[in-house]
Amino acid sequence: MWYAQQMIATNPTPPTVDQTALAECIQACFDCAQACTARADACPGEQDREMLLRCIRLNLDCANPCDATGRILTRQTALEPRMQLAALEACATACRLCGDECATHAEHGMDHCRVCAESCRRCEQACHQMLGRVAA
Amino acid sequence: MWYAQQMIATNPTPPTVDQTALAECIQACFDCAQACTARADACPGEQDREMLLRCIRLNLDCANPCDATGRILTRQTALEPRMQLAALEACATACRLCGDECATHAEHGMDHCRVCAESCRRCEQACHQMLGRVAA
Amino acid sequence: MWYAQQMIATNPTPPTVDQTALAECIQACFDCAQACTARADACPGEQDREMLLRCIRLNLDCANPCDATGRILTRQTALEPRMQLAALEACATACRLCGDECATHAEHGMDHCRVCAESCRRCEQACHQMLGRVAA
Amino acid sequence: MWYAQQMIATNPTPPTVDQTALAECIQACFDCAQACTARADACPGEQDREMLLRCIRLNLDCANPCDATGRILTRQTALEPRMQLAALEACATACRLCGDECATHAEHGMDHCRVCAESCRRCEQACHQMLGRVAA
Repeated sequence: MWYAQQMIATNPTPPTVDQTALAECIQACFDCAQACTARADACPGEQDREMLLRCIRLNLDCANPCDATGRILTRQTALEPRMQLAALEACATACRLCGDECATHAEHGMDHCRVCAESCRRCEQACHQMLGRVAA
Repeated sequence: MWYAQQMIATNPTPPTVDQTALAECIQACFDCAQACTARADACPGEQDREMLLRCIRLNLDCANPCDATGRILTRQTALEPRMQLAALEACATACRLCGDECATHAEHGMDHCRVCAESCRRCEQACHQMLGRVAA
Repeated sequence: MWYAQQMIATNPTPPTVDQTALAECIQACFDCAQACTARADACPGEQDREMLLRCIRLNLDCANPCDATGRILTRQTALEPRMQLAALEACATACRLCGDECATHAEHGMDHCRVCAESCRRCEQACHQMLGRVAA
Repeated sequence: MWYAQQMIATNPTPPTVDQTALAECIQACFDCAQACTARADACPGEQDREMLLRCIRLNLDCANPCDATGRILTRQTALEPRMQLAALEACATACRLCGDECATHAEHGMDHCRVCAESCRRCEQACHQMLGRVAA
């Protein structure tokens, strides 16, 4: 989280929300995009075809709004709260759907799914926290 | 729209919605991501600093959910309607906010803004049309 | 190609290379990113596991530099030729590797692969054409 | 770097290169994409118009291959070394060009530029290290 926090701290336009919460949410979005990209790649090792396709699919999808939201939150100049809210809502939904799927696989003892489920949960929670702060 | 339509038509998993509407929405998302990226770049030529910063900002932001939504709609295998709906809603909001801003500049005779505003409107409408079809 | 061409034609900074060739290359990059994303999704329908994994992998990978290069070429203000050249070279290589793989599958009668192979070839050629123009 | 490392460690396909170096390079790519996105946003606060436009431009551009390369390196299944090499070379060049520009601004005492320059340098070095390992 070091770079995200430093970039916020040294931005000529100070953020309108709590710096630590913002940096945490940005980092959670980028980390989750990375974890979901890794997960979609690792998943072909699994056996059940239906579960496999659904899991790859949700991970590929989830990486997209995480990436979009991480970038939108990164920009501080002339920000538009309605843009942030729309992105955060889509990202929280994507992380919930993908996290639920990964959690199911994790219960069956797959470590890879567990790490990805954690990453989705952390990102979903960070988005909900930011939704509360931006809307306030 | 040729490639998007061909890729849908030859996909082993046929789409659950109207092929032409889907191809149109995918293409509108990718086109709008391109137009907004171009717009954010061309905008520095403008004079009013506040309007300039807001316009660049909204265009950079808008390109992100357009890109994310274009990719999510492109995937047909094991699709999750709630993921599509979340992405489409974020994209429609982004295109509305960015299109409104570009339309204001277009009224002052800037051709570049007019083309980008048209691209945002087309994408917003295509997303609303898909929202109706996916939800149905 | 209409939007890409219009955005170039109305940009306050006119391009330093031929407008039609530039618009064609930008469009080829965005189209190829879309086709490869669709291809990686459709591919799980195939039977041979080794070929399947290699094909998904190359298509997911190829979409990334296509997307990056489409955006870099889209920006006309204060452009840096060395940045363009580096992006174009990576994109041409990615499209060659992915196009070769798709062409192999296309020979076995898969329509989906044929469309994607065409999209990769068109993008590879457009990148090579631009490499010649930027370097000149 | 925790998630990248965990996702590599739990991937059913173990990486063909040193895990720590790979995780470091993936994280450096994602961090640099974030820092460059933040930098392009913060930069409008600067005064000199020519330097401003070049700096925004290089940061927007640099974020694209960083993002593409971070994703390509993240995928371990059925990897194609030539795809990795092409991406790493483009990313190293982008980070060098962008880092050089940011370093110039950093000399004039701008903290924001200094953090971004560090992020570019770290990513450039990580890419060069990976280029040596992949080629070997």
